[in-house]
Amino acid sequence: MNYIDIIGLFAGACVTISTIPQILKVWKTKKVKQISLKMFGTLTFGIAVWVIYGILKNDLPIIITNSISLILNLTMVYFIIYFEKEQ
Amino acid sequence: MNYIDIIGLFAGACVTISTIPQILKVWKTKKVKQISLKMFGTLTFGIAVWVIYGILKNDLPIIITNSISLILNLTMVYFIIYFEKEQ
Repeated sequence: MNYIDIIGLFAGACVTISTIPQILKVWKTKKVKQISLKMFGTLTFGIAVWVIYGILKNDLPIIITNSISLILNLTMVYFIIYFEKEQ
Repeated sequence: MNYIDIIGLFAGACVTISTIPQILKVWKTKKVKQISLKMFGTLTFGIAVWVIYGILKNDLPIIITNSISLILNLTMVYFIIYFEKEQ
């Protein structure tokens, strides 16, 4: 792994962890009305395609970071659908 | 550009356009209380680092899609700060 890979991992880490404060906010407040399901749905689909791209390019930072992102954003999609019903 | 680049562009296009429905939702409702500034702040910073990674790797899909993402997410950060003050 060279320094460019490390920059990629750092970028991916920032993008990946960024979803966590939003998940925690929704978890605490149970409120999702202002959050766009279209955003998180499209984002999650796009991230899944990034994972495929990373596999095809054998690009480890893309594979690792996007796989974690995928799980976190799937959680957001689930939360939005679940808490929207609750409201 | 080969088929892997096209998959990368498609992935990036999905992730990039995903921010648009959230921008429109905030623009219409002017409400941002449920949206995490920490999320969009960290995301925007991470995307900026992805642009640098793309430049260093000479990876066109990463450069193009993340540059557009950067503009859209900067818009979200601005909206969250601006409309939070308004409330």
